[in-house]
Amino acid sequence: MDIPVIRSVFESNEKLAEKVREKLRAEHVLTLNIISSPGAGKTTLLEHTLRDLKDTFRMAVIEGDLQTDNDAQRIAKSGVQVVQINTEGGCHLESSMILSSLEKIDIKGLDILFIENVGNLVCPVEFDLGEDYKVALLSVTEGDDKPEKYPLLFKLAKALVLNKVDLLPYVPFDVDRATRFARRHNPDLALFQVSCTKNTGLEEWYTWLKNARKNIV
Amino acid sequence: MDIPVIRSVFESNEKLAEKVREKLRAEHVLTLNIISSPGAGKTTLLEHTLRDLKDTFRMAVIEGDLQTDNDAQRIAKSGVQVVQINTEGGCHLESSMILSSLEKIDIKGLDILFIENVGNLVCPVEFDLGEDYKVALLSVTEGDDKPEKYPLLFKLAKALVLNKVDLLPYVPFDVDRATRFARRHNPDLALFQVSCTKNTGLEEWYTWLKNARKNIV
Repeated sequence: MDIPVIRSVFESNEKLAEKVREKLRAEHVLTLNIISSPGAGKTTLLEHTLRDLKDTFRMAVIEGDLQTDNDAQRIAKSGVQVVQINTEGGCHLESSMILSSLEKIDIKGLDILFIENVGNLVCPVEFDLGEDYKVALLSVTEGDDKPEKYPLLFKLAKALVLNKVDLLPYVPFDVDRATRFARRHNPDLALFQVSCTKNTGLEEWYTWLKNARKNIV
Repeated sequence: MDIPVIRSVFESNEKLAEKVREKLRAEHVLTLNIISSPGAGKTTLLEHTLRDLKDTFRMAVIEGDLQTDNDAQRIAKSGVQVVQINTEGGCHLESSMILSSLEKIDIKGLDILFIENVGNLVCPVEFDLGEDYKVALLSVTEGDDKPEKYPLLFKLAKALVLNKVDLLPYVPFDVDRATRFARRHNPDLALFQVSCTKNTGLEEWYTWLKNARKNIV
């Protein structure tokens, strides 16, 4: 007698993530899964990137949120294709949601797909969405101990955008300490010091995007 | 034939939460479950509270973290009883962990037990730990849209501590907007504007604690 085995959430997620990856790789789309705490500045970073690189790349965005389409509305102003996923309380995106979203995005000729995950430093890290790379965002107001206290994201990310560096004079945050923790298990982690509100440090991030995109093709 | 039914995570958590609640109520301990994003300032708020109210209350702390005992070490300096729970990657505390922790705390004569949850605005909200009240912490650097985007915490919390208000001149944050969203589904939410680093606004929070403690006895 065959005993039915319930596949783990992770196993099923991995399989659909591979489907997502195949679809996007076939079109040479660079896919980035952006992960951070709530309010670290994911949407603001994307607004700048979409505006500043609009003549360089064809881009699209999948927005993950528990509730509201506020962020998708902000992104839509840039004119790129955007799909909003509402998790209705769910703490992370899963690959099945990305697969459904791809039905609503024209990926032919797309250069970069940004997936903005739910604001959460823990759960989203465990779910492969079929991305090429995870990108971590950390705002300096969160404290320099975060890479040590929430290590998995900083271990798995390809790049770390350190945001709100204009606030460094007002908060206790040691960039060297944060960098040291983050690179302890991830020596090749690319790191950018950025202020989206003051428009500083973004060029290095754009250069990284251009190189990452080149490596996909 | 009896078919075994696997109880839901939530149901089993609720039962143990009731046990925790019974134990603590029997000793007239006010128990607070402190929830926020990573880096909003939970540990710093507790450091101030433990120092400033040490002659008023007997207090103890349960610290929840994915990794490290950094926060417990900070709390221990105040001289109160502290237990560290490491979730090893888990995104929230559960009542079973609190029940085990209580074996290591002398609750006889204790006035207030603070439980500092894992830094996460989503998952911890769904797990009753046997507390009297949830207390939400939000730092102004996270943006005034957070109560709208992460509504459950702000709906269930008894009090909201708005932290880092010394940074209001440097960040786009409308206190009225945040308050309006937070109170939409929770009109009685107590709200405190605090700066732990500048030591402002803490008196109102202490007054609230004193009244909350009075109502338990």
